[in-house]
Amino acid sequence: MEYRIIMIGCGTVGQGLLEILEKKAAFLRDVYDFEPRIVAITDKLKGTVIWPEGLQIKPLLETLKQGKKLNDYPGPREKADEFVDPLDLIEKVEAEIMAEMTYTDIKTGEPATSYIKKALRTGKHVVTSNKGPAALHYAELRELARLNNRHFRIEGTVMSGTPVFHLFENGLAGNELLQVKGILNGTTNFILTKMELDGLEYDEALKLAQQLGYAEADPTADVEGFDAVAKVVILANALMGGTLKPDDVRRQGISHLRKKDILEARETGQRYKLIASVKKDGDKITASVAPERLPLSDPLSAVMGAQNALTFETDLMGRVTIQGAGAGRIETGFSILSDMLAIARCAAR
Amino acid sequence: MEYRIIMIGCGTVGQGLLEILEKKAAFLRDVYDFEPRIVAITDKLKGTVIWPEGLQIKPLLETLKQGKKLNDYPGPREKADEFVDPLDLIEKVEAEIMAEMTYTDIKTGEPATSYIKKALRTGKHVVTSNKGPAALHYAELRELARLNNRHFRIEGTVMSGTPVFHLFENGLAGNELLQVKGILNGTTNFILTKMELDGLEYDEALKLAQQLGYAEADPTADVEGFDAVAKVVILANALMGGTLKPDDVRRQGISHLRKKDILEARETGQRYKLIASVKKDGDKITASVAPERLPLSDPLSAVMGAQNALTFETDLMGRVTIQGAGAGRIETGFSILSDMLAIARCAAR
Repeated sequence: MEYRIIMIGCGTVGQGLLEILEKKAAFLRDVYDFEPRIVAITDKLKGTVIWPEGLQIKPLLETLKQGKKLNDYPGPREKADEFVDPLDLIEKVEAEIMAEMTYTDIKTGEPATSYIKKALRTGKHVVTSNKGPAALHYAELRELARLNNRHFRIEGTVMSGTPVFHLFENGLAGNELLQVKGILNGTTNFILTKMELDGLEYDEALKLAQQLGYAEADPTADVEGFDAVAKVVILANALMGGTLKPDDVRRQGISHLRKKDILEARETGQRYKLIASVKKDGDKITASVAPERLPLSDPLSAVMGAQNALTFETDLMGRVTIQGAGAGRIETGFSILSDMLAIARCAAR
Repeated sequence: MEYRIIMIGCGTVGQGLLEILEKKAAFLRDVYDFEPRIVAITDKLKGTVIWPEGLQIKPLLETLKQGKKLNDYPGPREKADEFVDPLDLIEKVEAEIMAEMTYTDIKTGEPATSYIKKALRTGKHVVTSNKGPAALHYAELRELARLNNRHFRIEGTVMSGTPVFHLFENGLAGNELLQVKGILNGTTNFILTKMELDGLEYDEALKLAQQLGYAEADPTADVEGFDAVAKVVILANALMGGTLKPDDVRRQGISHLRKKDILEARETGQRYKLIASVKKDGDKITASVAPERLPLSDPLSAVMGAQNALTFETDLMGRVTIQGAGAGRIETGFSILSDMLAIARCAAR
């Protein structure tokens, strides 16, 4: 079946998605009966391109790889301003799915939240990898989606394409969730791994992470736990029906840890990990992000490098842990595809 | 929505399922709109009970707990022979779902395979935790299900209710599967763990596993790898479209391993695990079960005790590992429920 798709944002995630769709077009059609048609893309830095019959992905990717703008796309396209505002584009262009892939603003969730509302109100399913709307406005957006009989899907907001929400929604359906606990930030896990295995001091490990592109020039969001806080709020609200805000989460980062702390833990058979967790006690939901000394028997203690992992503690299945990539161009692009395939699965039935 | 269910076999798994359905009736109705109605149960040892309007689960469980037969169920029931043959029961009783939970015969897959065929041909969805039919006749049963527009679901055949098939079908949809590799037998993993952590010899660890009920009096199926072979064949055929038979799998157990082997591996930073794996090379699918020395950086190396885990190696997401229970009354009972909920999800859309 054909799905018309609007892409808002065409940075790393958007281009990862386009690469997947280009490479796997035949596979997706043959195995999943999924035929995506990208009808419009708009991106603040890269401009806008619209074609209701579907853009050709190969020349589109070539245009972007050459550092050109979307407006330089050589195939057939509508006449449009150099940059069409997403709100106007969503209003004007017909589509089944809007993929929201702009940058996260964790203070306001904007402008992405407005794009999502506009898309749901104009009858489009919404798929997003943007943590802002999911962390700040999940309940409201979920309800708006329900009222419009549309999906609001957020697989890419936590652990990129590693299927966290899919897992709970399908394979673990029927369980009550007592706790979720995980390693949700690859940068800090990389730093802790290097401190322990290569004996680096915190500053050295951070510098290495920056050199390798795991950490940003200003590493605050990662090392002080803010990124993990956003993700844990999403888990609390999306999986447990909570109404937490980032400020409700007890937060401690890893920047105070020294090599001697790590090695001391190791000597007692433990390992430091930055653990994000959400717990349900009756109706009360509490969340925290803080370094913890885990016994080596805990599956989370074995998660090394930039990997992420999450343990679901459930009433019927006990603990189930999933481990996989927590970031990456293709991995996060895949999260968008996986949510679109979930929408297609529903429609097919 | 109401689902009429026939249960074939009422041993550990069946009773685990009944306990879950009893305890979680309101939750399943409110959250998943799933209202199971057990209309018939037949079990070679425990007899038969039939009531098209639905049996009451509480008195049913009490009857079984007292060691009585299904025929002693005190609620309203049809007159029937003490034991009604499953083939006759499936033919005669109307239902949406047949849950097949009899014992595994890994040589023939019978009589379960005949029950499954009869159920599919009479328009019933089939859910099973029985490794025999899935390992020996997957392609045929899958095709029969397709022709009858019915589900044939097998979540409980590998890693009990830990969602292996659900994970690949939903969260990892869109990926091509290059390899699956895992720890699929809890008994042998328990023995290897005890040999390493408590310094037991193989015979001592086996005896302990037998005392704790992890291993049977004749432990051959577990320790020589036959149980893992059946599971790896199921994975090869259900996830990769293979047509393997158990004899096609290269097999080595763990009974030749000694404490000194385990400790020697440990000294070089490695750990012995009984690894079941399936690999795809072009159109060729090969499978094996054998002890491997894994580096401690491999997520599978951290799986201790009776736990199971499986790593999917995919083209888009790289490696994704899921770890959880590999056996258990409630866990395997849950696998049946989770497959029934998947059927209900489809019908609801």
